[in-house]
Amino acid sequence: MISEKMLELGRKSSAIREIFEYGRKRKAQIGEENVFDFSLGNPSVCPPAVVGETIKKIVDELDPTELHGYTSAPGDLATRSAVANYLAEKYGTDDTADNIYMTVGAAASLTISLKAVICDGDEVIVLAPFFPEYRVFAESAGAKLVVVPCREGDFQLDADALSKAVNKNTKAVILNSPNNPTGAVFSEASIKTLAKILSEKEAEFSHTIYIISDEPYRELVYGDVKVPYTANYYDDTISCYSFSKSLSLPGERIGYICVSKKCGDWKDIFFAVCGAGRALGFVCAPSLMQKIIPACLGKTSDIAVYDTNRRILYKELTDYGYECVKPDGAFYMFVKALEPDAAAFCEKAKKHELLLVPSDSFGAEGYVRISYCVTTEQIMRSLPAFKALAEDYGKI
Amino acid sequence: MISEKMLELGRKSSAIREIFEYGRKRKAQIGEENVFDFSLGNPSVCPPAVVGETIKKIVDELDPTELHGYTSAPGDLATRSAVANYLAEKYGTDDTADNIYMTVGAAASLTISLKAVICDGDEVIVLAPFFPEYRVFAESAGAKLVVVPCREGDFQLDADALSKAVNKNTKAVILNSPNNPTGAVFSEASIKTLAKILSEKEAEFSHTIYIISDEPYRELVYGDVKVPYTANYYDDTISCYSFSKSLSLPGERIGYICVSKKCGDWKDIFFAVCGAGRALGFVCAPSLMQKIIPACLGKTSDIAVYDTNRRILYKELTDYGYECVKPDGAFYMFVKALEPDAAAFCEKAKKHELLLVPSDSFGAEGYVRISYCVTTEQIMRSLPAFKALAEDYGKI
Repeated sequence: MISEKMLELGRKSSAIREIFEYGRKRKAQIGEENVFDFSLGNPSVCPPAVVGETIKKIVDELDPTELHGYTSAPGDLATRSAVANYLAEKYGTDDTADNIYMTVGAAASLTISLKAVICDGDEVIVLAPFFPEYRVFAESAGAKLVVVPCREGDFQLDADALSKAVNKNTKAVILNSPNNPTGAVFSEASIKTLAKILSEKEAEFSHTIYIISDEPYRELVYGDVKVPYTANYYDDTISCYSFSKSLSLPGERIGYICVSKKCGDWKDIFFAVCGAGRALGFVCAPSLMQKIIPACLGKTSDIAVYDTNRRILYKELTDYGYECVKPDGAFYMFVKALEPDAAAFCEKAKKHELLLVPSDSFGAEGYVRISYCVTTEQIMRSLPAFKALAEDYGKI
Repeated sequence: MISEKMLELGRKSSAIREIFEYGRKRKAQIGEENVFDFSLGNPSVCPPAVVGETIKKIVDELDPTELHGYTSAPGDLATRSAVANYLAEKYGTDDTADNIYMTVGAAASLTISLKAVICDGDEVIVLAPFFPEYRVFAESAGAKLVVVPCREGDFQLDADALSKAVNKNTKAVILNSPNNPTGAVFSEASIKTLAKILSEKEAEFSHTIYIISDEPYRELVYGDVKVPYTANYYDDTISCYSFSKSLSLPGERIGYICVSKKCGDWKDIFFAVCGAGRALGFVCAPSLMQKIIPACLGKTSDIAVYDTNRRILYKELTDYGYECVKPDGAFYMFVKALEPDAAAFCEKAKKHELLLVPSDSFGAEGYVRISYCVTTEQIMRSLPAFKALAEDYGKI
């Protein structure tokens, strides 16, 4: 008599959450330092000092009824202007406050964008491997999810597979680069090909196909890797951002949607975004967090820690005989399981207290995701376990 | 090619917001002190000092990765336990952390609760006058909204009207007491009658009918008025709360859902609530705000200011010849327009720089809503304008 779909969604927490919960119990049994939990993308590095300083400063200095009061539904005007100026300066866009909508984090950015554009019968394409909640969000907005695999080996766009999947019902493609779970950054060539295919399909089917560009890891890249800014390559782009990962604020739920002004009907899309935010019950993004954003734009947590973790893990794991593509961004490593069944492999890993997420829930088989946004101490302590696991499979 | 429904919702901001936006422009033209804006329910009284103090304290003392990190989806366990203990102590309930789900404010409490219980073909009853976003939330969850008027004169339950409206498709009744827009508090007799009717209808139709009790104004009552706690009168109650009004934190979006343990299938409903929160994109309520709640439970802003405003307005307006029921709670007064057409009356009020909200959008004709959560100075300055408006209608 209640919604069966919601009941099922609530009962079956995501595979990632299940492993995380197992980890909590296991840590209570054998001690936190003896469990190597690589399940969650929960940043271990503190936010930059400016976050706490700005919070205390505005609590002291602003009128509390203004600080904690409703902002307008798309967000505080000063914050939206600051975000627009940041994007304009960094990426050469023509964004202004008018096309920026502050959100309650990345998930809200996505559910609102999808609800704004999806009509009955629409399809949404995801490029696998993909963050499993995309399915929940797309289906909740009433769309059918269509999975298009990336190229194996480098996780770049498979142009043929995409071309075949786009049809008259395709309303949007969700792009996520740097990618969760692979850590791959879509190359400029991949983005250009994607843009070319979608533009041709828009012409062929005489309707708009949006790229919904989910970019919470945009600032988390290593070495001299550059993340192409999708909206500069494809006009019909809705960028979804969150400060969760760059500022280590995942619990605060603060992000934004930028409806590119190059979308032909960007003002209508922006109105629909406002309508969707209202229908879903968001009202406005948390006001205090909105108001710290102008001081924090362009700053990040100390991502050198993640880079260190990445280098150590990549070097050691490949030495032990594991195969994986060296990730360029985010804080995930996508490693080939040492047997075809990733879930079975993860069970064996558990015997060494290694908590890894099997790739099946990401729409790909035979891999595991390692979230390395943990302390470097945990990385070091876990190495013998990874080694022992490889030995179980006769790799060493 | 995008969602027409969302586009329309985004374009037509609510009547309340439209008047508020008019007020902003008008203030810029003739000075803030010369516009008497009674449109928004945005508290003018500062939050209690404990709010700012606790924010600064936890920023200083808690590990920032914990303070700003993801909480579990239903919320921080210590916060949920504190909320449950508060309810158990105040209302004698058997709540525990297990049936408390922290939300991103009242709107989220409602959209999540509705999405959790609504199935295809369901109807949701609202008791008019009602907060207009209920229509948006119910329709967005896929329900048909059915409007049942309250008794004119005292805005209590009209038992006959309700009885006639409940049918086999009725899944829930949204109750809002103290009420927006009338300020009426549903009497114990009204709640008991409501509970009796719904229990009989549950038996008649052999299915559960929920009361979704929207209670953001629960603590805002004046004199010795008591607000009956709905869940103590009707088993199948889902209580929706927000700290927006009691703590003057409307922009921070923090509230909770309490699924009464007296609901036969409360565990399933709670799972469905978790599922709905996930599908709508909420992830978790803002973590810093969650963590200040245990220190703030049972505290409120200085509501004596609202009481003063209420007494002055009620006395003066009735002296000028206006008719209204003296409100017992919230910070709204529902006054009879001096002509049948409330919108036309509001236009005339504008000539005296009085910004009032016509009752039509609340599902009732011939009234205006006055939000008196403003400064007492504004109340005093506005009195000559109310008097002049009454004079226009030959009342004085």
